[in-house]
Amino acid sequence: MSGPITVLPISGIPEIEAGADLGRAIASAAEPTDGDIFVVAQKVVSKAEGRGRRLADVEPSPRAIELGHDLDKDPRLVELILAESVRIVRDERVLIVETAGGLICANAGIDSSNVGAAGEVLLLPEDPDASAQRLRAEIGAAAGGRVGVVISDSFGRPWRVGQTDVAIGCAGVRPVDDWRGRPDRDGRELAATEIAVADQLAGAADLSRDKAAGVPAVLIRGRPDLVTAEDGPGARSLQRPRDQDLFR
Amino acid sequence: MSGPITVLPISGIPEIEAGADLGRAIASAAEPTDGDIFVVAQKVVSKAEGRGRRLADVEPSPRAIELGHDLDKDPRLVELILAESVRIVRDERVLIVETAGGLICANAGIDSSNVGAAGEVLLLPEDPDASAQRLRAEIGAAAGGRVGVVISDSFGRPWRVGQTDVAIGCAGVRPVDDWRGRPDRDGRELAATEIAVADQLAGAADLSRDKAAGVPAVLIRGRPDLVTAEDGPGARSLQRPRDQDLFR
Repeated sequence: MSGPITVLPISGIPEIEAGADLGRAIASAAEPTDGDIFVVAQKVVSKAEGRGRRLADVEPSPRAIELGHDLDKDPRLVELILAESVRIVRDERVLIVETAGGLICANAGIDSSNVGAAGEVLLLPEDPDASAQRLRAEIGAAAGGRVGVVISDSFGRPWRVGQTDVAIGCAGVRPVDDWRGRPDRDGRELAATEIAVADQLAGAADLSRDKAAGVPAVLIRGRPDLVTAEDGPGARSLQRPRDQDLFR
Repeated sequence: MSGPITVLPISGIPEIEAGADLGRAIASAAEPTDGDIFVVAQKVVSKAEGRGRRLADVEPSPRAIELGHDLDKDPRLVELILAESVRIVRDERVLIVETAGGLICANAGIDSSNVGAAGEVLLLPEDPDASAQRLRAEIGAAAGGRVGVVISDSFGRPWRVGQTDVAIGCAGVRPVDDWRGRPDRDGRELAATEIAVADQLAGAADLSRDKAAGVPAVLIRGRPDLVTAEDGPGARSLQRPRDQDLFR
């Protein structure tokens, strides 16, 4: 469908601590209605799920110490990265890994920007699709209808400068809008055919969010066709199977 | 800044032929105002710039014939891809190249979805940043103010399924929103710091565009802070320098 889309940062969500009812906090701050899509920042999901880790509690392995030395990185952080990973993809300059959840990203997605005095870093949610499913149930109940949830994080990319937000979890949103075999208006088959809409939703949400203002969730209105009755395949379905990937 | 963003597909743009005044057509169909960002699909820019090529006019080289055979691709199309490229990045299953313009993408970005009876394919604009600059001047004149222009195309990515739209050209838009060194609200330095906003604008625009309806341009309102007085560094600045790239 073709039509206007509105991207609305949700203000008024209180500071989220471990154990907080994030879904209720988002639903209270927004006025969710049927067909809305909520893009929630990974950081606040990780916080609510108690994924903070204190570097002071981490005992680095010899391997973490060696890698940390090579990469000029805190070996305790490297230890956490390795514990979250199943494979190192690159360890030149940056540490790019495949996480246990199948994501390929720098530092296993561990957020160490706000380490602060407490020396606390944030791991990714353990199962971001499951997190999205829980949030969807909570926000959907408040909406009295169908909503979609995307959990977003900022990833770098090969070949291109800078980060864009992508979907690391989703529920109730079709992650890929599949046009394969559908004709265009002249009746010819389309070329760009598998559109990673969940990633584009994450990126659109990020545009509306002031990084410094700490807006943890964004509401996107105008694509109710992407919102599904079921939780669906989740963002995991956006992970390219290894045997079809030319770049790892 | 944090605030609502509106993504508006521009309807009523007539069919664009080679030589058409695309900037004027877009400006007439929209009501541009100061601070607007226009995301224009590569395809319509290529059409206006006469970048269509008839396969019947192409004489494939022995190398194109061989590659075409290996990849099950029309050797005349392969010939055009090679002519647009400076380097092959991968030639297993798909042909991923570095174009003369520095983009890394499948098939040198050549659009062969609408080959049709005439056997015509569309090359990328020769210099998409220059195309964006021309469009910006034309649309800006109609707006009586500052506008930004992004030229978008759908690219696949390593590791992840599906395509997202990225900026292959831009003018009057800051391509990267650079937060390096800027503190967050707690006064701590931010981690995700170089945000490829031009790519996120392209992706956001794509969400509002029905592929089958042929909407060639989208207006994004709500980020006038990204619109600059000068044309700026363009989307070329989003190309990661080769010596900093771990994946080619």
